Amino acid sequence: MTDTALKDLSYAKLHDEWDELELEDKLRRFQELTHADAEEFFRELGSSDESELLTALPTREQRLWIRVLDPDDAADVIQSIEEEERGHFLELLDESTRTEVSALMAYAEDEAGGLMSPRYARVRPDMTVDEALAYLRKQALETVETVYLVYVLDGQQHLLGVVSVRRLFSSPPTKKVNDVMRTNMITANEDADQEDLSKLFKEHNLLAIPVVDSEGRMKGIVTIDDIVDVVEEEATEDIQKMGGSEALGDPYLKIELSEMIKKRAGWLFVLFLGELLTANAMGYFEDQIAKAVILALFLPLIISSGGNAGSQASTLVVRAMALDEVRLRDWWKVMQREIIVGSSMGVILGIVGYIRVIVWESLFHTYGPHSQLLGVTVGLSLVGIVLWGSVSGSILPFVLKRAGFDPASASTPFVATLVDVTGVVLYFTIASVVLKGAML
Amino acid sequence: MTDTALKDLSYAKLHDEWDELELEDKLRRFQELTHADAEEFFRELGSSDESELLTALPTREQRLWIRVLDPDDAADVIQSIEEEERGHFLELLDESTRTEVSALMAYAEDEAGGLMSPRYARVRPDMTVDEALAYLRKQALETVETVYLVYVLDGQQHLLGVVSVRRLFSSPPTKKVNDVMRTNMITANEDADQEDLSKLFKEHNLLAIPVVDSEGRMKGIVTIDDIVDVVEEEATEDIQKMGGSEALGDPYLKIELSEMIKKRAGWLFVLFLGELLTANAMGYFEDQIAKAVILALFLPLIISSGGNAGSQASTLVVRAMALDEVRLRDWWKVMQREIIVGSSMGVILGIVGYIRVIVWESLFHTYGPHSQLLGVTVGLSLVGIVLWGSVSGSILPFVLKRAGFDPASASTPFVATLVDVTGVVLYFTIASVVLKGAML
Repeated sequence: MTDTALKDLSYAKLHDEWDELELEDKLRRFQELTHADAEEFFRELGSSDESELLTALPTREQRLWIRVLDPDDAADVIQSIEEEERGHFLELLDESTRTEVSALMAYAEDEAGGLMSPRYARVRPDMTVDEALAYLRKQALETVETVYLVYVLDGQQHLLGVVSVRRLFSSPPTKKVNDVMRTNMITANEDADQEDLSKLFKEHNLLAIPVVDSEGRMKGIVTIDDIVDVVEEEATEDIQKMGGSEALGDPYLKIELSEMIKKRAGWLFVLFLGELLTANAMGYFEDQIAKAVILALFLPLIISSGGNAGSQASTLVVRAMALDEVRLRDWWKVMQREIIVGSSMGVILGIVGYIRVIVWESLFHTYGPHSQLLGVTVGLSLVGIVLWGSVSGSILPFVLKRAGFDPASASTPFVATLVDVTGVVLYFTIASVVLKGAML
Repeated sequence: MTDTALKDLSYAKLHDEWDELELEDKLRRFQELTHADAEEFFRELGSSDESELLTALPTREQRLWIRVLDPDDAADVIQSIEEEERGHFLELLDESTRTEVSALMAYAEDEAGGLMSPRYARVRPDMTVDEALAYLRKQALETVETVYLVYVLDGQQHLLGVVSVRRLFSSPPTKKVNDVMRTNMITANEDADQEDLSKLFKEHNLLAIPVVDSEGRMKGIVTIDDIVDVVEEEATEDIQKMGGSEALGDPYLKIELSEMIKKRAGWLFVLFLGELLTANAMGYFEDQIAKAVILALFLPLIISSGGNAGSQASTLVVRAMALDEVRLRDWWKVMQREIIVGSSMGVILGIVGYIRVIVWESLFHTYGPHSQLLGVTVGLSLVGIVLWGSVSGSILPFVLKRAGFDPASASTPFVATLVDVTGVVLYFTIASVVLKGAML
C-alpha cells in the first residue's frame, strides 16, 4: 500500500526488519548506512531502541549520535539507559544541551514537563513585526521544535501571548508584536497529567501547547506529535484494564513472565474470590436443584448472557468516558438508554430461549410435562438478567469514577462476575415462583 | 490543572459548555465573541459542530466562516452537511478553493486522500537554495499546512524529494535544491487505509507524509495532527469490538437507540447461540448432576474463571497486534508464554479452590464424606480451565487474523462463551474420573 524510497530501499527495509534482528546485526546494518540515511534512521527510532544502539556503540560514535537528538528526545533516551551509565551519556552532550536535558529529566515522563521541548521560537512584545521575523530567521538556524507558532515573552520569561508565522508575514512590518499577538490561549502547567494534556489538544484542535510554571513563566512547548504516543499509550492502558488485568506497561513479548503473571494473577484472584460467592449463592438453592436437576442445565446460559450484555454496556460507557463524551452528570441519561436497550435485547433472547425449550421438548421429550413452565422460567430469567447486566454494567463505571477509581477497572470480567452472582439468585428466585407446585 | 486565557475567559468557557447548549444558545454566544476569538473558536470546533453552526447561520455569515477553513477541513464540514445542501456551501467558496474541496470530497474519509491537505510548500529541483527560500516566503503568505517540510516536484507534479526549512537555511545559498534534498522518504498512496497510515507515522516518527497517486504524482500531505484523531478512532473501534458489540461509529449519547440495539443485539444473539451449547453439553451430564447435585454448585465458579483468564489473554494479544508488537509469525512465542502464565495462575486458583472446599466442609459439613475428592475435582478443573482459557484466548486472535477477520472480534464475551462450553465438558469429565465409585 505504500511506496517507499524513490532511490534506495535498504533504509526502509532495515526499519521493517529491525525488531527481528539480534543486537549485533542491528549494529552492523546501522553502521552500513550512509551518514544521511543513518541520521534519519536514528532519529526515527523509539527511545528504547536508541538507547540499546547507543550503549552498544564505541564512545566516539556515541557522542556523534546522541548529539543528533533534540533535548527532549535525548532526555528520554538517557532515562531509558541504566542509572549508573546515565552520567557518561550526559557528559557526551555539549554544555548548553546538557543543562536543558538535565532540567527535563527532573520531570516525570507522563506529565507535561516530561513531554515538553525547551526549544521553541520566542520574541519580545516590543519588537516590530520586521524585527521579529529577522530574529526568527536567526532562531530557525538553530533547532527549534516548531517555527509555525512564536511565543511572546517578557524579560522574566513570562508568557504574554502567541503569534503565528503566517500572521507575522501578513501584518504591517512596523507594527509591534504586542499589537498582533493573541493573548487568549490555552496553556498547561508543568505538572499537568499527560492524559489531560491530550484532551486539551483534542478539544481545541491545537498543534502545540506552551507549558508554564505556577508563576506563568514559560518552560517549553508540547507539540502534537508527542501526543500521538500519549493517546495510543492511554488507549492501551484502558484496553488492558478493561480486559481484566493491570496495564502491562511493556510490550507483550518483552515483559518479563514473572511480571506478567503478577499483573494478571492479582485481578484474576480478586475475580475468583467474587466468583466463589456463586458457590455460596447456589448452596442456598441446592434443594431446588436436587428436585429439578433440569434447572441447572440452563444456568450457564443465563448467567453468561447477562455477563455478555454487561460487558457490552460497561465497555461502551468506559470508552465514552475516556473520550469525554459521557460525564458523571450524564448517569441518568445513560441509565435510561440502557433500560431501553437492555429490555429490548432481553426480550429477544428471552423469546429465543423459550422457543429453544419448547422445540427441544417436542423433538426429544427431554424436559418432561412441565416444559412450558420451564420455558417461561428460562425466558423471564433471560429478560431480567440481560436488563440487569446492561444497567449494572453501565452504572458501575460511574460508581467507580465517583469513588475516585479508574472507570476502566469496570472490566468485562469484573462486570461478568458481578452479574454471575446476582444471576444465580435471580434465576432460582424466578424458578421458585413459576415452578412452585409443578417441578418444585 | 490548566491555566486558560491570560485576559479573557469567555472563549474558553464557551468551549467547555458547548456540548450542553441548545443550538439557539450556541448561535447567540458564538455571535457574541469578538471576531478574532470567534475565528479561533470556529477553527477549533470539530467538523460536525462546524456544520451544525454553519447551517444555522444567515448566508452572509456562512460565506465568511466557511472561508476561514483550510480546504481539507472545509471538505469534512461539507461532507457532514445533508447531501442536498452541499452544493449551496460549495458555491460559497472562492473558485480555486472550491476545486480543491471538490477533489478532496471524492476520497473516502478513512483513506489517505480523505485525510490529506492539498496545501503544502513546494519548490522545483533546479532552484537555488536562495530562490527556494524567497519562493517559500511567498507561499507562506498564502496558507500552507506546514512550512517545516518542503516538497520538491518536477513540472508534472512528480515527487522527487523533500527538504526541511532548517536544511535550506543552513545550506549555501547558491547550491541547487536538487543537491540538498533527501530522496529517501516514506510516501503513501492516495487510497492507503488510515490505519496503515497511522502505523507509518508511528514507526518512522514522522510529522507529515506526502500522498502520491499510482504514478508518483504528489496529491497532498497528511500531517501528524490528523493522525491523533485516527489513532483515537481506531482504538475506540477496537475497544467496542472487544467488549462484544459492533463499533458504534457515533458517540454513545448521540447514536439512535434503534441503531445501538442493532449494533449490540447482533453479537449478543450470536453469543447466545454459542451459550445454548452449554445447555446441550450439560444435558449429557444430567445423570451425574442428579447423583451429585453438589457438583453443580461449583460450575459457575469454574467456567467463569476460565472465561476471565481467556479475556485477559485475548485482550492483551489483540492490543499487541494492533500496535504491531505481535505479528502472525509470533503465535508460537505467544502460546509458550500463555502456557507458562496460564498454568501458574491455574495452580494458584486451583489451590485456593481446593482449600475453599476443605475449609467449608470442616466449618459447615456441607459437602459430605467425599469432600476431599470434591476439592481435588474443583482444584484440577481450575488448573485445566485457566490454562485452557489463557491458551485459547491468546490463539483465537491469530486464527481470526489468519482467516482475514479483525482480531478485535476475539471479544472478551466471545472468548468467555468458547471457554464456557468447553469448561462444562472439562469439569464433568474430570469429575467422572476423580469421583468414580465415590459420589458418581
